[in-house]
Amino acid sequence: MSEIRFDIVSLHAAYASGVTVADMIDAVHARIVAADDPGIFIHLPGKTDMLAQAQELGPFDPATKPLWGVPFAVKDNIDVAGMPTTAACAEYAYVPETDATVVARLKAAGALVVGKTNLDQFATGLVGVRTPYPIPRNAVDASLVPGGSSSGSAVATARGIVSFALGTDTAGSGRIPAGLNNIVGLKPTVGALSAAGVVPACRTLDCVSVFALTVEDAYTVFGVAAAEDPADAYSRAIKVPALAARPPVLNVGVPAKSDLKFFGDASMQVGFEAALGLLETLGCRLVEIPFSDFYATANLLYEGAWVAERYAAISDFMDANEAAMHPVTRKIIGGARSLSAADAFRGLYALQAYKAKLAPVVASVDLFCVPTAPTHYTTAAVLADPVVTNSRLGTYTNFVNLLDMCGVAVPTGRRGDGLPMSVTFLAPAGRDALTAMLARDLHAQSGLPLGATGWPQLGPRPAAVPPCDGMIDLVVVGAHLSGMPLNGQLNQLGAQFLRATRTAAAYKLYALAGQSVPKPGLIRVADGGMRIDVEVWRLGPEAFGRFVAAIPAPLGIGTVELDDGTPARGFLVESAGLDGASDISSFGGWRRFVARGNS
Amino acid sequence: MSEIRFDIVSLHAAYASGVTVADMIDAVHARIVAADDPGIFIHLPGKTDMLAQAQELGPFDPATKPLWGVPFAVKDNIDVAGMPTTAACAEYAYVPETDATVVARLKAAGALVVGKTNLDQFATGLVGVRTPYPIPRNAVDASLVPGGSSSGSAVATARGIVSFALGTDTAGSGRIPAGLNNIVGLKPTVGALSAAGVVPACRTLDCVSVFALTVEDAYTVFGVAAAEDPADAYSRAIKVPALAARPPVLNVGVPAKSDLKFFGDASMQVGFEAALGLLETLGCRLVEIPFSDFYATANLLYEGAWVAERYAAISDFMDANEAAMHPVTRKIIGGARSLSAADAFRGLYALQAYKAKLAPVVASVDLFCVPTAPTHYTTAAVLADPVVTNSRLGTYTNFVNLLDMCGVAVPTGRRGDGLPMSVTFLAPAGRDALTAMLARDLHAQSGLPLGATGWPQLGPRPAAVPPCDGMIDLVVVGAHLSGMPLNGQLNQLGAQFLRATRTAAAYKLYALAGQSVPKPGLIRVADGGMRIDVEVWRLGPEAFGRFVAAIPAPLGIGTVELDDGTPARGFLVESAGLDGASDISSFGGWRRFVARGNS
Repeated sequence: MSEIRFDIVSLHAAYASGVTVADMIDAVHARIVAADDPGIFIHLPGKTDMLAQAQELGPFDPATKPLWGVPFAVKDNIDVAGMPTTAACAEYAYVPETDATVVARLKAAGALVVGKTNLDQFATGLVGVRTPYPIPRNAVDASLVPGGSSSGSAVATARGIVSFALGTDTAGSGRIPAGLNNIVGLKPTVGALSAAGVVPACRTLDCVSVFALTVEDAYTVFGVAAAEDPADAYSRAIKVPALAARPPVLNVGVPAKSDLKFFGDASMQVGFEAALGLLETLGCRLVEIPFSDFYATANLLYEGAWVAERYAAISDFMDANEAAMHPVTRKIIGGARSLSAADAFRGLYALQAYKAKLAPVVASVDLFCVPTAPTHYTTAAVLADPVVTNSRLGTYTNFVNLLDMCGVAVPTGRRGDGLPMSVTFLAPAGRDALTAMLARDLHAQSGLPLGATGWPQLGPRPAAVPPCDGMIDLVVVGAHLSGMPLNGQLNQLGAQFLRATRTAAAYKLYALAGQSVPKPGLIRVADGGMRIDVEVWRLGPEAFGRFVAAIPAPLGIGTVELDDGTPARGFLVESAGLDGASDISSFGGWRRFVARGNS
Repeated sequence: MSEIRFDIVSLHAAYASGVTVADMIDAVHARIVAADDPGIFIHLPGKTDMLAQAQELGPFDPATKPLWGVPFAVKDNIDVAGMPTTAACAEYAYVPETDATVVARLKAAGALVVGKTNLDQFATGLVGVRTPYPIPRNAVDASLVPGGSSSGSAVATARGIVSFALGTDTAGSGRIPAGLNNIVGLKPTVGALSAAGVVPACRTLDCVSVFALTVEDAYTVFGVAAAEDPADAYSRAIKVPALAARPPVLNVGVPAKSDLKFFGDASMQVGFEAALGLLETLGCRLVEIPFSDFYATANLLYEGAWVAERYAAISDFMDANEAAMHPVTRKIIGGARSLSAADAFRGLYALQAYKAKLAPVVASVDLFCVPTAPTHYTTAAVLADPVVTNSRLGTYTNFVNLLDMCGVAVPTGRRGDGLPMSVTFLAPAGRDALTAMLARDLHAQSGLPLGATGWPQLGPRPAAVPPCDGMIDLVVVGAHLSGMPLNGQLNQLGAQFLRATRTAAAYKLYALAGQSVPKPGLIRVADGGMRIDVEVWRLGPEAFGRFVAAIPAPLGIGTVELDDGTPARGFLVESAGLDGASDISSFGGWRRFVARGNS
């Protein structure tokens, strides 16, 4: 049974065809044995524990429990009730009585915890080697660092041991290990996932993140886990709309060529250029953006005041147990002791200055595309120079949470030397869906197998249809139909054609009298209603507002019931406006009426 | 000419009737002489300087220059080109070459600088006595402290020496001196007025504020001064709509009786109760709110990390010139030296926790009304106990900027002992207009003369018709009327009440059947139509778009003809939705129908 694919779509298909949870658990543990990597898990309860969890599941019901029977791993700085939380520091360990909010939400949706994963101690690092436990091996090339701080979570996902894993991301810990292990790393908007029950690194910046084999899986998990949480003062209500088709044209900011940094890794440069080429085949417009202010912002994270957040999070423990800490971690966090409160505020001022300066730059494109990591390092190289290598890995990640952006790291190919190539899409807070839509399509375009499993990608699935993040669907019936005289108004407002369809069989259509531009009026009737041809267009709320405000009497916008029973906003006519109008319902639609030489 | 009234409306009327700027300048200086208070101004250039400024004005043209020939004072922590900035510390002084952004904007609108005013040194204090210069005398009762830190600005305004004055407000420095001197203090949304060219106190919280004799004047100045400014990273684009009619029903949060603090000042308690009584006569609904979390937030300002911002702002100067500082100021700011960066972040976390906890409380009402100050102090009392008295004065002010609220302090009466009574309206960021509208109406209701000038208030002026500029007027007829169950939807969308009116005599109103929230439906009819009571609300296109998109069948938005013949967007009902509905047109409107015990 170790051939069960663990991407959520395949796993649920397997359950539907008779595979059992026990089969799945056997596969998990067979893969753990096969991986032969004692660095992945810090706490691994075993099959019995998973079977016990599974007893709560009830019959297979993915509609009610979208993660029914889905195995996942949890970075060991996130609480799982009854399992020790170590943050990769055994002396720090405690056994929480309750789950972190995100873990509780995932369990409630049917997901099953496999174990707690290794990390750079106290989530301080991007390398994955700053741990007193064995260093997890990169799933693609064992000589390389796995990346961190969420090292074990990324490797467990890449090896197909779990369907997904939780990480955390302050400087890039949810993106770098994804990039280095050929998997997807979704780093949500700061505050979208509750940090209650998570050992803090920098409380003002910390994000819980999701590793998965596909963007669709990562986004599904994100949607289940996301919720504003009174237990986390930094949590925010962020919308998670279903992933629909991406806008056909997107302006994608990329670092200006002269600002790109690969630290001599020519393969990464070539790989990045190839990824941008794929993006262009998807219809994206690339816009080169000077990147020095982004790099300067990134530098604030470890050179500035934010290290003091890491110290504030564990100062009681650290002051009493300094010798217990990893030497690199101890040195970095200990540096905060000499920082004053005035230094902290000076750091905040510096960040605010970059935020203000970069706001128009960020707003000038739809989203950004950067290399996830500038280079790969061997474990030996990182151990030889732990600070500089770590710092370089954060080139394209450290500024992101400081600037309140969200992002998705996604595999885009294999470099010339066979190592994984990955880019990260970044966008302002709240645009998680946009970054995910483009990442999904780029991943498909890459044709890569998933993680280190060898499993091919599934073919494209039918795009989920509405609702699309605050967008409004508008039913038009007359002069605004495609090719009709007022259709240009919709195009000018940036409206998008969705489909041609019909109303429910409950309407009459009249050709109105006394109109300068010939127009019909649609009206719902109690008896004798017909199906009338309409088009559905989609536009943003501001465009919709302007459009509605300009509609003259006797027309207005109400609710139109479509043929499939769904309601949408659409044109209706006042009954008082039908004076002198002709009932043209029998034509079945305005276009057909006009085509007969009428109007 | 010293009888020229200096409220802007009267001064402009005087200019229109032949009074000259030279007459105005004579009046300014006659009043300075009459005040006989060497504590008001730190730098006072004299008539010649003002005449020189006036030469740039051109002919009287208030349409182009809304502050044409209007004299104002500037707190001496705000730069005026060519005048020394001392922050009330002579050793700190420098002569700026350029105006602070706000000063430049006011000058460009025709305002003339009279001089730089005294303050609590480095804007640290609410008392007005922490200055090495003579202490300004309270304009109403010379034995009382003037309040601070914007002491000189408030006294100059109250005495009619200037039409308005700029202050700054971090803890309450723009409100307390207003409250103690019977004038208006407008403390804008944090960032609405640029702080470029202002000596910082706490950069994350500092606001430039406006003192004036009337709310209308303060709001006019605010509107001229407000603009997003690239030179201030904390500046924000805040809308300043013209002041229209206030919504007829407002829910006003007030501290729960058991949480009110007057420190034994029974007259202030009686005065506050009287002010609340006035508010009720204006149709406000008072909602008692537990206030302990607001007080706890307030305590963070001086007990927590924010003192380090004051130190960060002047540390170079302070470390080299400590003896030059006022002893109380030195002690307070010096306390920051022992605070670590971790302490600073712990302070930020504590604030975030209160913000999250208080967010639903703040959202539960339209705005808040608190006493501006809990008590009056004599100068002797403050000098005897400088820290405790200062701290108490901040009871109702210190939490405001921390919670990102805006506010207006407004006189409401004289207490039993003849001393000024004032309240402050507070609301979340961006609702400056709402607080000003209610403050304006409460001030009018009080019938008080202006400041210490003896000038009576002008009668009510016709409400300015706000500029349309893309805004959309919406006619509501039922559950969205003020005070009705769905009215909160409009408030949440930032809609502004414009007026109550009626439709043309062409409509019928029905009570709809089968609604969870009782609702009527308005429909135009060819014959037998009546005039129906409606309200007109104004909102932006995006808000309007969202609103329309959420309207359920059988309601929609079409064109409603109003009593005066003008068309506007408004609620209509589909004729097909009138099944089972009752014709209630004879009631003349939904409110009257509901008031008869129907619905």
